[in-house]
Amino acid sequence: MAEPDSPLSVPVPCYVTGLAQDGPDFTICALVRSQDKYDRLLASFYRNGFDALNSEFLVADNRDDNRFDGHSWQEPLLARAKGRFVIFCHDDIELLDQGHSALISALERLELDAPDWLLAGVAGGRYRPRKNNRVYLRMHISDPWGENRQMGEMPGRVETLDECFILMRRSRPVLPSLDLSGFHFYGPDLCLQAELQGGSAWAIDFHLRHHGRGTKDASFADCRDRFIAKYARIFPGRSVHCTTGIVTFPAEDPPDQA
Amino acid sequence: MAEPDSPLSVPVPCYVTGLAQDGPDFTICALVRSQDKYDRLLASFYRNGFDALNSEFLVADNRDDNRFDGHSWQEPLLARAKGRFVIFCHDDIELLDQGHSALISALERLELDAPDWLLAGVAGGRYRPRKNNRVYLRMHISDPWGENRQMGEMPGRVETLDECFILMRRSRPVLPSLDLSGFHFYGPDLCLQAELQGGSAWAIDFHLRHHGRGTKDASFADCRDRFIAKYARIFPGRSVHCTTGIVTFPAEDPPDQA
Repeated sequence: MAEPDSPLSVPVPCYVTGLAQDGPDFTICALVRSQDKYDRLLASFYRNGFDALNSEFLVADNRDDNRFDGHSWQEPLLARAKGRFVIFCHDDIELLDQGHSALISALERLELDAPDWLLAGVAGGRYRPRKNNRVYLRMHISDPWGENRQMGEMPGRVETLDECFILMRRSRPVLPSLDLSGFHFYGPDLCLQAELQGGSAWAIDFHLRHHGRGTKDASFADCRDRFIAKYARIFPGRSVHCTTGIVTFPAEDPPDQA
Repeated sequence: MAEPDSPLSVPVPCYVTGLAQDGPDFTICALVRSQDKYDRLLASFYRNGFDALNSEFLVADNRDDNRFDGHSWQEPLLARAKGRFVIFCHDDIELLDQGHSALISALERLELDAPDWLLAGVAGGRYRPRKNNRVYLRMHISDPWGENRQMGEMPGRVETLDECFILMRRSRPVLPSLDLSGFHFYGPDLCLQAELQGGSAWAIDFHLRHHGRGTKDASFADCRDRFIAKYARIFPGRSVHCTTGIVTFPAEDPPDQA
């Protein structure tokens, strides 16, 4: 370690001419309450080509206590992440037969088709659907409601994403709203933030299993109300389709801008 | 390096319980066209306590070519940054007598007063001023228009920041809109993005010299028009005070949300 005033304390700037890609391909971040579920997740990723050479695995540790909520767990993990892409997922997902190479291929296609993409997930609500659209969701997933469920065209632009699996570039992260909290609606919040940033969110075909039923506990209605109150000021009159149901932001008189 | 299928390829997850602070205090990022100006900047930071032990210096290298514009230079530098705080500044600033310890003190105060802060700068427009406010800007700066110019209370919340010096937390970055470009209005854009994220932007008292006059070249009007077009949809009827002048987002009929 250099002493102050030694030659080693003199700053040597690094001149950057482009985007560096020196970390692993993926940082896989999971919000973990159950060790058993997470062990199942980890084994399924390893079985499908995500290993210590191309990936790093970070855990927001809620095993013994609710240290983090849905809006607060991304920041400390992102601060440690080194991967080119960062995945935020729940502990109750399990990869099936698609793995590292399928995900890289889907993302390379997305980079070409939609250079403004900021978020990708496996299930979400179609972007600004028309009233005559018959399918409002896009997904390819196996979960307690069915095996191999497929809805809507994939890849396709979405305005909400299910929180079970959401992926972003580390160099261009999208973080949840600071004025929202709780365990619900942070996926839709991320997508609307991406849209406000001038980017887009996409559902991609990356089939996995979500063991959870997405519990609508007592806090669900409260999270929903605060989500609506926030975005009604920004998108008055708009309806968004979440995997948990439709949400409408009431059209009101514009707030006083004085 | 481990071979696939060797024990070293088995992922070992890292369990995270809080925010890590293992990098230097600051990553100082500069958009550099002139080596002479940057050398002056670098010497002034070193003279004021920013050294290779507590800071790293990254350059978006526009010395021989306009590789980056005002909206595109942050992402590749942020991807390499390791500091707790990241400063984005122009190459034509120079520190005077406030340095590392003054900046740390100002930020520690900000953390206490406004835990939702996302951006800090040295000059900007007062947040949602009332019509009877006589001072619309907040600043403490020396520049071609005067020595030691002081306007408004500091620290104070702002809705725009001058691009000469903008600072954020690495763990919670705010990046410019993907649907805007050019060398102007990315400071105000960052502040409005921070506000949409549920956070706030602040002018802090950190006196420095800005040698530049902030040239309003031919592209200024074009950048201004696109900035207005974007935010008129989100904040119809609002006026924001930039260090380059006032900007009003016209109030219009809300766009078709079908």
